[in-house]
Amino acid sequence: MSKLNVTQKLIKEHLLKGEMIPGKEIGIKIDQALLQDATGTLVQLELEAMGLDRAKTEVAVQYVDHNLLQTDFKNADDHAFLLSASQRFGIWYSRPGNGVSHPVHMERFGKPGKTMVGSDSHTPAAGSLGMLAIGTGGLDVAAAIAGQPYFVKMPQVMGVKLTGKMPDWISAKDVILEMLRRYDVKGGVGKVIEYYGPGLAELSAMDRHVIANMGAELGATTTVFPSDDMTRKFLKSQGREEDWTELVADEGCTYDLEDEIVLDDLVPLIAKPTSPGNVVPVREVEGMEIGQVVIGSSANPGVRDFWIAGAIVKGKATREEVSFDINPTSRQVIQNLIANKGFENLIAAGARFHQSGCMGCIGMGQAPASDTISLRTMPRNFPSRSGTEDDQVYLCSPETAAASALTGKITDPRDLEKLYDMKYPRYEYPEKELINTMMLVAPPEHNMEVELKKGPNIKSLPYITELRDSCDVPVLLKMGDNISTDEILRAGAEVLPFRSNLPEISKFSYSVIDDTFYDRAQKAKEDHGGHIVVAKDNYAQGSSREHAALAPKYLGQIAVIANSYARIAWQNLVNFGILPLEFIDIADFDKIEQGDSVSLTNVREDVKNRNNIKVSISKKDGERIEIETKHSLSDRQIQVLLKGGIINEFKEQLKNRDVGAVNKNTVTDNERNQVK
Amino acid sequence: MSKLNVTQKLIKEHLLKGEMIPGKEIGIKIDQALLQDATGTLVQLELEAMGLDRAKTEVAVQYVDHNLLQTDFKNADDHAFLLSASQRFGIWYSRPGNGVSHPVHMERFGKPGKTMVGSDSHTPAAGSLGMLAIGTGGLDVAAAIAGQPYFVKMPQVMGVKLTGKMPDWISAKDVILEMLRRYDVKGGVGKVIEYYGPGLAELSAMDRHVIANMGAELGATTTVFPSDDMTRKFLKSQGREEDWTELVADEGCTYDLEDEIVLDDLVPLIAKPTSPGNVVPVREVEGMEIGQVVIGSSANPGVRDFWIAGAIVKGKATREEVSFDINPTSRQVIQNLIANKGFENLIAAGARFHQSGCMGCIGMGQAPASDTISLRTMPRNFPSRSGTEDDQVYLCSPETAAASALTGKITDPRDLEKLYDMKYPRYEYPEKELINTMMLVAPPEHNMEVELKKGPNIKSLPYITELRDSCDVPVLLKMGDNISTDEILRAGAEVLPFRSNLPEISKFSYSVIDDTFYDRAQKAKEDHGGHIVVAKDNYAQGSSREHAALAPKYLGQIAVIANSYARIAWQNLVNFGILPLEFIDIADFDKIEQGDSVSLTNVREDVKNRNNIKVSISKKDGERIEIETKHSLSDRQIQVLLKGGIINEFKEQLKNRDVGAVNKNTVTDNERNQVK
Repeated sequence: MSKLNVTQKLIKEHLLKGEMIPGKEIGIKIDQALLQDATGTLVQLELEAMGLDRAKTEVAVQYVDHNLLQTDFKNADDHAFLLSASQRFGIWYSRPGNGVSHPVHMERFGKPGKTMVGSDSHTPAAGSLGMLAIGTGGLDVAAAIAGQPYFVKMPQVMGVKLTGKMPDWISAKDVILEMLRRYDVKGGVGKVIEYYGPGLAELSAMDRHVIANMGAELGATTTVFPSDDMTRKFLKSQGREEDWTELVADEGCTYDLEDEIVLDDLVPLIAKPTSPGNVVPVREVEGMEIGQVVIGSSANPGVRDFWIAGAIVKGKATREEVSFDINPTSRQVIQNLIANKGFENLIAAGARFHQSGCMGCIGMGQAPASDTISLRTMPRNFPSRSGTEDDQVYLCSPETAAASALTGKITDPRDLEKLYDMKYPRYEYPEKELINTMMLVAPPEHNMEVELKKGPNIKSLPYITELRDSCDVPVLLKMGDNISTDEILRAGAEVLPFRSNLPEISKFSYSVIDDTFYDRAQKAKEDHGGHIVVAKDNYAQGSSREHAALAPKYLGQIAVIANSYARIAWQNLVNFGILPLEFIDIADFDKIEQGDSVSLTNVREDVKNRNNIKVSISKKDGERIEIETKHSLSDRQIQVLLKGGIINEFKEQLKNRDVGAVNKNTVTDNERNQVK
Repeated sequence: MSKLNVTQKLIKEHLLKGEMIPGKEIGIKIDQALLQDATGTLVQLELEAMGLDRAKTEVAVQYVDHNLLQTDFKNADDHAFLLSASQRFGIWYSRPGNGVSHPVHMERFGKPGKTMVGSDSHTPAAGSLGMLAIGTGGLDVAAAIAGQPYFVKMPQVMGVKLTGKMPDWISAKDVILEMLRRYDVKGGVGKVIEYYGPGLAELSAMDRHVIANMGAELGATTTVFPSDDMTRKFLKSQGREEDWTELVADEGCTYDLEDEIVLDDLVPLIAKPTSPGNVVPVREVEGMEIGQVVIGSSANPGVRDFWIAGAIVKGKATREEVSFDINPTSRQVIQNLIANKGFENLIAAGARFHQSGCMGCIGMGQAPASDTISLRTMPRNFPSRSGTEDDQVYLCSPETAAASALTGKITDPRDLEKLYDMKYPRYEYPEKELINTMMLVAPPEHNMEVELKKGPNIKSLPYITELRDSCDVPVLLKMGDNISTDEILRAGAEVLPFRSNLPEISKFSYSVIDDTFYDRAQKAKEDHGGHIVVAKDNYAQGSSREHAALAPKYLGQIAVIANSYARIAWQNLVNFGILPLEFIDIADFDKIEQGDSVSLTNVREDVKNRNNIKVSISKKDGERIEIETKHSLSDRQIQVLLKGGIINEFKEQLKNRDVGAVNKNTVTDNERNQVK
């Protein structure tokens, strides 16, 4: 492996543990961290619980772009908390209204050759600059900020060669839609998608952002582009040419998998409801009437993406029955759109401008009307994500979206040549963009003095107890197969506002399955010091939400006994100090009932030594049965579990460090004033 | 009364019924009607129920500015319905995102000398142009659109003489705050406030809008300004100079009440929580830390109001702990702000731009954080209106708001001279504003062909039955004093989304008092054809919401028997066909209990002839008691009530008209293309 591709170079440069063999766990050094507000409050509370002095990454940035609709005090309180926590832990803070994390990060902080983790699934967008950027759970990001390596299975690298020229009316969105047409939403799992070849010259850095961002929809670990002259031009336009370094694949390097896209062959594509992988040519669905067009989101964030929509609708009227919504990505985008007239072209044609942020992309407003088609330049069209239950969301390029806003029907933008006698408008990238850093707040040098500002709905994480060595506790719940995290802790408007309030959100634990659970768990905690639950196969499948482990732990959950676990949830249980036991004889599942008591003894020693764990069951009728269970934890996980989870582990590590040492990321006054 | 003031001239010109004696009911011809979306859906459903062919007013406009946060299908469905209904009934439609009703109406449709009713309490803003514009209930607006006179008590006219020059850092908002300081929130009840005098030359038409708009907070019937050269200049700047006519008070005219404001004496004022009447000089509260500044709303809607905020923060940074929210009033305001650099000054200083509309002014987002002060240029700071329960909202001028955003504390803008060595920036009004009419949809000529587009949450009003001549029905509820409309039909997030769905919203009838009411009412309707309720004094006080009569009527309410009624609610009962009976002997209140049955006979004849209405009560133990009650209805109200309410009455009237006649408001293609 002497000739390396870009992905391999990035990993090799940051490898701390493991070997670069696809499928094997590696630990890599993390240079940058990205937080957004929906996940960030819990991450910051985790940093507080760890007792972090100051972020150890080179750059960590807290963005506020998700929860911008303030219909009561909670979101505004979160913003104030995130500002104070960012100041306390040495993290940059991007104020609400400044813009969507991914493009703003790329413009202001992204650097070729760096690694990043982010608590947002579209973090791979930074791959557009030659970074290795991975979206992951909040606790992984907290760990990275605390200076820990990030552990991930070494991915396969799929090299996608781009050749040819981009035809008129086709843009980067059509490239990633073509990938989704070929590979669907699981085709990228376990892989890094690396683009290369002469066709790269057709793609600006922000075009590459479009492709890397929506690469998340392929299920890929991340997407990587080289850092080449296009990258240099971009950084120069952002006043940061000095941050550019070249990073290209070695000539003669290989890829684990290969594919090619001939750009000339691309046609306008569109993802039909209700999956980003449901891609067909626009021609196949043209003529269908629409009720909404939304342009924006991190999947089409660049000035060009708005400018071209403006150039298409310039001097024309969008249809009155179409809500033509524009979500500017950032204040910087707005300023540049004003300068190049894109803004006024859109406004004049009937656009409805919204505040800078994710907005409709994450269902924060802009829900379409019943029984109407909504065309969006966004990355996702999962059912109901728009806020409308029976929605019909189609995903497409800004060209297709703008053309359709004019006609009121799904329209192939190439038809504009005939319909409006229009030539394809081409954006001239300026040498230097207007740059606006006013809403980026640098962390102070003396960060330890900052006090956290917690509104009534924000509660510090309680102390998480270590794994008990013995217990005699009730079985509070016996469940079947495929219990999802939604059943363990449901999402939705009633529950989500309590994401920063563990005592409150824990009240919803297992409420979908049994709404007496919370009361019974409280009583079991008081009377017996905790409880266990039992499940069959694939426990805690579904979303990766950490609260599905954290909340039961808070209510005293000591162990789960199941036939098998969903991967992420199994990690989460360990990370929050719950013992995930497995039946050795799956027939034993039938021997244990809700209401039984179980005794565990010598647990810590047995876990450490990988002995079978004996579970003594007292049946309600007084009978006693003994069964055996096991665990499948790695050595690292055993360490974490014994301490009661990852927060306690880092807490200990951080305590043992010299907190007086100068932190790498201390921002000097000089640097603070120079942020570009 | 040969010498008339402007108010008297406007009324005299439109008088159809009654005499111009303060306190006596008059009926006036209505030229224009204004609808917004929160109240407009019910108005349009009322027009449907009346069977209206086409609006009879010269101009009627449906604005969409309130419900712009689309978190599910309902608001978007309402927008689609309002477009279709506007097209059907010959009403202009202002698309969501086009802007706030009052300033847009003033810019595009307002005309000196005209009358207008609007289903929004800030409708008086149009008084800035020399109009008589009154905010009223939805059914009154529907009636006006159907060609009916508007009935109101002839108000007293309070003449407020303006003299002197406006000092630097003082603007129109300080004038209306001075009025609120003097008269508080009830000081204008039963009055029209008419401004005159040499100081008028200091106030542009949009400044006058600020004063007329927030005049609603005085409780005034409306506010009137003359139409003078300032008015002409404004209409010219809007490309509508030909719509200008002079309308000034006769020399030597008199006013029922008089006051004077010497502009030179004004200081920056601010309304403290939680009333717009709680006004003090900014100096009295300066230095208090703030968490939010919001600039916008119909109370400070003009280009100048945003421009001056931009000029104040130009080249400076707003404080990081302050959310600096900008609600542009309209797309037109945005375009003009771009042209005069106001937009970029605000953006560069850290402004968070929102979509054009009412937004935070009516609690649609922008709720402030807990325990922080929010400074707003809006007209109202009632408790919790912002969305945050324990909010602390202060109302002030754009000058005070912008100054405070810079310092992070409530700041007298005059201090900017020292703090920043700043001269008061003065706005130069352009001869012609950039004008944008793209989102105003004209009604079609052949409006009868348009079909109403109703999402699943929009239900036509059911047929409303006429007053029954006899009945034998249960007393479903016995209530005490001061029952509010909130108790009869509560507002709030759970209920309001059903404002266009009578069957659904009726389920919440009296639920605050007794949550079995709906089921019992359904049963009583089935078994006995209806029910009555009993209350003590001041029944149905509070908000004017029509649903508090409409929903009980839908559930079969035949009559209310009470000691006395709140004024508006009493009218609403009649308008929706419920008989409002009064105890003659208030001791009879004790003779009737929930669960009793009451018989009424010969009701129609007795109501018509103003006979006492005999109520025969069957007690639960079989005893029968007879009591006497009466009503206080006018002849007109008796007519309305017998027909089952105002909708049925108009329905009949409209049926008897020649619907084939050319309607006055038919928009020709020529006019449609010329809207300016």
